[in-house]
Amino acid sequence: MSEIKVGIVGLGRLGKVHARNIAFKIPGAKLVAACSIMEAELQYAKEELKVSETFTSYKEMLEKADLDAVAIVSSSPCHCDQIEKALAKGLHVFTEKPLGVDVEECKKAEKAVEAHPDQVFFLGFMRRFDPSYSYAKKKIEEGAIGTPYMVKATGIDPEAAVEGAIKFAPTSGGLFIDMSSHDVDLIRWFLGSEVKEVYALGANFKHPEFLSCNDTETGAALFQLENGGIAELHVGRTAAHGYHIETEIVGTEGSIRISPVPEKNLAILYDRYGARQECVESFPERFDEAYLLEMQEFIQCIIEKKKPKLSVYDGTRATEICFAMKKSFEEKRLVKLGE
Amino acid sequence: MSEIKVGIVGLGRLGKVHARNIAFKIPGAKLVAACSIMEAELQYAKEELKVSETFTSYKEMLEKADLDAVAIVSSSPCHCDQIEKALAKGLHVFTEKPLGVDVEECKKAEKAVEAHPDQVFFLGFMRRFDPSYSYAKKKIEEGAIGTPYMVKATGIDPEAAVEGAIKFAPTSGGLFIDMSSHDVDLIRWFLGSEVKEVYALGANFKHPEFLSCNDTETGAALFQLENGGIAELHVGRTAAHGYHIETEIVGTEGSIRISPVPEKNLAILYDRYGARQECVESFPERFDEAYLLEMQEFIQCIIEKKKPKLSVYDGTRATEICFAMKKSFEEKRLVKLGE
Amino acid sequence: MSEIKVGIVGLGRLGKVHARNIAFKIPGAKLVAACSIMEAELQYAKEELKVSETFTSYKEMLEKADLDAVAIVSSSPCHCDQIEKALAKGLHVFTEKPLGVDVEECKKAEKAVEAHPDQVFFLGFMRRFDPSYSYAKKKIEEGAIGTPYMVKATGIDPEAAVEGAIKFAPTSGGLFIDMSSHDVDLIRWFLGSEVKEVYALGANFKHPEFLSCNDTETGAALFQLENGGIAELHVGRTAAHGYHIETEIVGTEGSIRISPVPEKNLAILYDRYGARQECVESFPERFDEAYLLEMQEFIQCIIEKKKPKLSVYDGTRATEICFAMKKSFEEKRLVKLGE
Amino acid sequence: MSEIKVGIVGLGRLGKVHARNIAFKIPGAKLVAACSIMEAELQYAKEELKVSETFTSYKEMLEKADLDAVAIVSSSPCHCDQIEKALAKGLHVFTEKPLGVDVEECKKAEKAVEAHPDQVFFLGFMRRFDPSYSYAKKKIEEGAIGTPYMVKATGIDPEAAVEGAIKFAPTSGGLFIDMSSHDVDLIRWFLGSEVKEVYALGANFKHPEFLSCNDTETGAALFQLENGGIAELHVGRTAAHGYHIETEIVGTEGSIRISPVPEKNLAILYDRYGARQECVESFPERFDEAYLLEMQEFIQCIIEKKKPKLSVYDGTRATEICFAMKKSFEEKRLVKLGE
Repeated sequence: MSEIKVGIVGLGRLGKVHARNIAFKIPGAKLVAACSIMEAELQYAKEELKVSETFTSYKEMLEKADLDAVAIVSSSPCHCDQIEKALAKGLHVFTEKPLGVDVEECKKAEKAVEAHPDQVFFLGFMRRFDPSYSYAKKKIEEGAIGTPYMVKATGIDPEAAVEGAIKFAPTSGGLFIDMSSHDVDLIRWFLGSEVKEVYALGANFKHPEFLSCNDTETGAALFQLENGGIAELHVGRTAAHGYHIETEIVGTEGSIRISPVPEKNLAILYDRYGARQECVESFPERFDEAYLLEMQEFIQCIIEKKKPKLSVYDGTRATEICFAMKKSFEEKRLVKLGE
Repeated sequence: MSEIKVGIVGLGRLGKVHARNIAFKIPGAKLVAACSIMEAELQYAKEELKVSETFTSYKEMLEKADLDAVAIVSSSPCHCDQIEKALAKGLHVFTEKPLGVDVEECKKAEKAVEAHPDQVFFLGFMRRFDPSYSYAKKKIEEGAIGTPYMVKATGIDPEAAVEGAIKFAPTSGGLFIDMSSHDVDLIRWFLGSEVKEVYALGANFKHPEFLSCNDTETGAALFQLENGGIAELHVGRTAAHGYHIETEIVGTEGSIRISPVPEKNLAILYDRYGARQECVESFPERFDEAYLLEMQEFIQCIIEKKKPKLSVYDGTRATEICFAMKKSFEEKRLVKLGE
Repeated sequence: MSEIKVGIVGLGRLGKVHARNIAFKIPGAKLVAACSIMEAELQYAKEELKVSETFTSYKEMLEKADLDAVAIVSSSPCHCDQIEKALAKGLHVFTEKPLGVDVEECKKAEKAVEAHPDQVFFLGFMRRFDPSYSYAKKKIEEGAIGTPYMVKATGIDPEAAVEGAIKFAPTSGGLFIDMSSHDVDLIRWFLGSEVKEVYALGANFKHPEFLSCNDTETGAALFQLENGGIAELHVGRTAAHGYHIETEIVGTEGSIRISPVPEKNLAILYDRYGARQECVESFPERFDEAYLLEMQEFIQCIIEKKKPKLSVYDGTRATEICFAMKKSFEEKRLVKLGE
Repeated sequence: MSEIKVGIVGLGRLGKVHARNIAFKIPGAKLVAACSIMEAELQYAKEELKVSETFTSYKEMLEKADLDAVAIVSSSPCHCDQIEKALAKGLHVFTEKPLGVDVEECKKAEKAVEAHPDQVFFLGFMRRFDPSYSYAKKKIEEGAIGTPYMVKATGIDPEAAVEGAIKFAPTSGGLFIDMSSHDVDLIRWFLGSEVKEVYALGANFKHPEFLSCNDTETGAALFQLENGGIAELHVGRTAAHGYHIETEIVGTEGSIRISPVPEKNLAILYDRYGARQECVESFPERFDEAYLLEMQEFIQCIIEKKKPKLSVYDGTRATEICFAMKKSFEEKRLVKLGE
């Protein structure tokens, strides 16, 4: 079979990660087109990625470029519409999270996906492809911890990046929408059950700017799942040591904890500060390999005509749960999913 | 000054720990009397601890023995009454947690303590004396993590001891009363604020016996504090690897996490199971030093006529919060403290 | 510039790693030819790697294929001759270690390299490219540990692979030749000085087969360096937990230790065996990224016409030191380099 | 049986540790006399330790005090003579290491011990009593790592204490005599075999003062044992992070490594320096419990009339090996034990 020809829309920080992976690191894939409203990004695509065709209009890219698939890494409000258009055009679709900026959009995306059952639709919850997370899943499936019944999830952005978070706070949807969907997906994935009820709290001790747009610096939530399981979540934006993603899955016969120290690498320093490990600083650094592996899987799904394990409904569920958390936080009460 | 003469009531597993500490390891203290309803325990006191006087009646011990202080390590329902009697007799009092089995009892204890302001009243939340916990407190007071605003607490008994927990489930008050007060005390201590509201959930996947007495094997709770802080709690009875007590205090400038691996000692094994550390098996093993240090502090308070930092009110607060958790768990709703 | 066309010789376990990297993961490089005496390997090259031309004769590959560079991953006794032939043909050369099977061969390789100063000669001491090792080197250059004066190196193959080691013991050159050159290179690299004298010992407690060909299962050596520095080495073949490569660099202001736990990933299991991390099982697993990064650097050196930091002389030095260790072990005495 | 009455000689830093343990922490022991040439130390003994009789002359203490045993914690050159005198007086003897300042003295001590077979002679290699080391020994005896055949020992004093080391360098005997005997004892203990040959090197990069008295800041040695085993040693005086004692025992089926991070306690800080553990600062901090446990065992040996597992010959062996290392370092050659 010939190479899968991919067009990408969005070449920001994460867009560049995906674009480089498609362009250079995935046998069987070829990055042939790129779309961005930033001229500098298109320049980058041409010069660094050797992309032959660049566009400032997504519509035009779909019409003119010779594509098998698109990778959507644009700003969140564009995802849903771009998904629909690409599917309608007969293309396979990879989209970054979130599926949509609200549940209604997600439902529209579901319909579009359902209308094109033979095209691959791939949702970028890349943590599932991270070697540590996929190892944990495999161990659990092998019975290593018995029946999993609790997930304790932590996701904290580095303080070093807080200025950006403050700047985008008015439009980001807030902490629970912007930062929690990966953790919510992990909770559902590891527990194999749906969230039934959620209670969420916020705390704001460092940057009052978040408060002024009804957002919060730190969030915590407690989830009741349909099968009787429990989940705890801690999300935030002010980790002093770096980018801290940690997850524990507790089962009847043991636990698996992933990344309690978000170590930069395998080196330990012994110096006047003690014995210490420097930590990863950002999501591209932490999930570098996961981004590559998920894109490989997307291409593999196209080549082998197989369905991704992650479905469009996983995207809708995550969005629903994030909005329920946000509502719980704002209304200071328990929120039932689907209430 | 002459030695502080101590009588102990209760010589079970923890009673023996306290008794040995008083008898042998604390300069300035002398164990002179012991009270138990178990003949074997009194025998132990005479032979192993060289206690001169033993009693089967607490009242009799108070009347006949020449005491400066008592250490109350009896069953929980006796604590409050024994506290009152000892204080009335003019003795200094060390008591194991819980202060009382319900809030009313705690209030009675408060009154008794208030009526004897010159006698030392010491409540055994020993974790505050554990070197790792007191180091964390000191670092926080020195500003190491800025303003603390979140505590994540975990306390799980070993599966190896679950049979006892099942046996006592009908009378223990349940997981939230029986197992959570130490963690609740740490939350209040580290955050320097009172709990305002709590939401608690249970999960029961391994031992259905807990369900039959309306108890739960695993519990989780989310706390809102008066000062805007947050706490997460995870308690349970089925840790496969040992006795797992872990606490993280999150602040504006960093975090301190205590005992993510409840290591038995400093040895690492490299073998076919990987690189691994065996874990502590029980509370006496984990908190051996803390039990000694708190008793030393009790004796020191008597000798130096100083007030313990922990007050009777800390005991009442912990009990109130545990009961609020229990109510939240049972009624499946948010519970306000003092509602 | 157009793509660098690479031919590979040797498609065994490590050869396949390099071949896949060149074929799929390095922008600017193209794997166009492969040479092997194993028909199945050539089949693999055609089908999996899409290599257009395959050869059973290295000479023929050099004559017929249109190449810019060769990657030599053949058996050790072929390296030196293949290096010479490729250089003579005007090609850039990447070669796996060892440079040659004895010092004489290395000297011949040096001459060949010297005769072609404009062609890139790249020696595959990939550890220098591993992110943890290159981080350590960078930290040291920044002054993080002051002046480095001691290296403690450990390299142990997994017991799981010992049968192969036993099988090849009669021809491998023995533990000190076969397994120590990477560690020796790290010692020279981190200390920035040459080895002056060495004392080496062996121990054989598990597999007597090694003794029967004058080899040893475990080796240890102590090195005096020219600048007054010291190095300790521990090499072996019987690690129960996996593939254990660990290195510590000790300096006047601190130390850096790399990989004391050769963790498979970031997951920790808490189960009846304690708190544990499973370990990497092999060199391709541990140094996966390093193999890619060194090959990228090789291609980059060709594209940018720059000299690799590692020179042919580094290969000769490593070989000389390994032979000195072997001599010390066999003659049970101190051996001076160049004696 | 009545309490064992102990007199102590030497109340320096370590003397005080032993004195407090005997005085307050060991059931069955009583500190009744203390001897020192420092008036302040005797004052301390009277006031803090409640010792009734104090002496400036050891001879006088032996004559006048009513003793069952002595604890010798005086300066090293006094040990041997004080051992002889106490044994001659019929007393049980605990002595700090070293047994004697040279091998001749050790031989004299051996004779004295042999002449009083019914008196307990106890040599203070306290590491054997540290919970992590005794756990390792027990696991090894249970077969956890198969046959042990290699020990890798590290002992580094903190840079914070280097001024004292420099001051005492002219009289301390040097690094190999002053600092290596504990590690040498561990090597013999864990491998169950005698050292046959040793090669030792020094390195001096930070404090030239050591060189001026033919001492060295850092030492490394490689040992061949009688049974074919191997040991590596690294000793030094300039650890930036604290007091670093680490030991690994390698066996045919696995390894046990003790204290790769000499953690102060169980707390981990996550802050701008990464994820880090502060380290122990001194031997009294690291081996606090070991000092207590060895003294308990000494008293227990007296009470139960049993022989300590450590014998006077273990002291002689350690001294012989330390002197062989020193000779190897000074003469830059392999040294056979007993040559």
